[in-house]
Amino acid sequence: MADYRIITISRQFGSGGRTIGKKLAEKLGIPCYDQEIIAAVAKESGFSKDYIAEHGDDVNTTWMGNIFQVGGSLSNQDVMWVAQSNVVRELAAKGPCVIVGRCADYILRDDYKLLKVFVFADVKARAERIVKLYGERTLSPEKRLKNKDRRRSAYYRHYTDLKWGDAANYHVSLDSGALGVDTCVDIIADVYAEVQKHDQ
Amino acid sequence: MADYRIITISRQFGSGGRTIGKKLAEKLGIPCYDQEIIAAVAKESGFSKDYIAEHGDDVNTTWMGNIFQVGGSLSNQDVMWVAQSNVVRELAAKGPCVIVGRCADYILRDDYKLLKVFVFADVKARAERIVKLYGERTLSPEKRLKNKDRRRSAYYRHYTDLKWGDAANYHVSLDSGALGVDTCVDIIADVYAEVQKHDQ
Repeated sequence: MADYRIITISRQFGSGGRTIGKKLAEKLGIPCYDQEIIAAVAKESGFSKDYIAEHGDDVNTTWMGNIFQVGGSLSNQDVMWVAQSNVVRELAAKGPCVIVGRCADYILRDDYKLLKVFVFADVKARAERIVKLYGERTLSPEKRLKNKDRRRSAYYRHYTDLKWGDAANYHVSLDSGALGVDTCVDIIADVYAEVQKHDQ
Repeated sequence: MADYRIITISRQFGSGGRTIGKKLAEKLGIPCYDQEIIAAVAKESGFSKDYIAEHGDDVNTTWMGNIFQVGGSLSNQDVMWVAQSNVVRELAAKGPCVIVGRCADYILRDDYKLLKVFVFADVKARAERIVKLYGERTLSPEKRLKNKDRRRSAYYRHYTDLKWGDAANYHVSLDSGALGVDTCVDIIADVYAEVQKHDQ
């Protein structure tokens, strides 16, 4: 078990979890892994960066009945899971860091002290955020959120056998819609400091 | 809407949520309402303090099919709910405070700025805690926890129509088993300070 603690951030789509991760890492002076993971997974798996960015955290279809390969060979999803797990482990081994998504909380659970954070917000707050960030699409923002939540949750359940977004799986769960992104950053930084005090 | 913020702590049985509430209030120099609520509800409703302490946060039977009165008259549970709601509102009106349990998060939701906290821990940590605090009983600690969780959850669902312990219902959810009671106190105090900074 490493003597440092890694922060993993699981987040609902549109909750600002990625931004929180980046700002938090900046505040703490440690790296936040996000694009690095995508680039490394692309190299290891052969998938394009776009494909990984889009599907590295959820299943690539909304038809839940048939998302994972049945039979002997590995699905694209499985290949990506193995590559991502390897990359997450390699990055974690480098030292304290923030890792956003990628089931890092599960992948690292036995080998690292973690601070497992879940960031969420209500549909209204998230809808506003994704329209602001990604613009309007044919699908309503509410529908896009619902699809993404469903896919992310199915992915997490499949690979970890845990319920994604269940408070019981995290040390800290924060409502970024009510608290605001910057408050969440400050809170997690404070919690990290508190926990580390007790780690000594 | 009052200009101060009230901290509500919902907690799993055996998670140390009540102790956290007390220590937190002490640290912040504000009152923590717990026994006061029980005494006031006893006065208002006519039920004994013991009865309220035992059942003011959950249903008083494990037979879920028949817990709430069907028909015109109010059940004991409903009478207690009304009395408790009144008491919670009266105490909240006095100023900043910590309120443990009693669905205070729901009762006060429209009239006060809240910091809604949920405290939980895994069964192992809670079983150890309740045996240490309340001693052994005929029922195993695991079974006692399961019964209490079921009753508290059914009570909360009945009166609030929300899922008790769902991270989405709280601003902050904390694993007291992993973090420890004192860390939780420090974390909530920090979060309260952060949130109040942004309240200004």
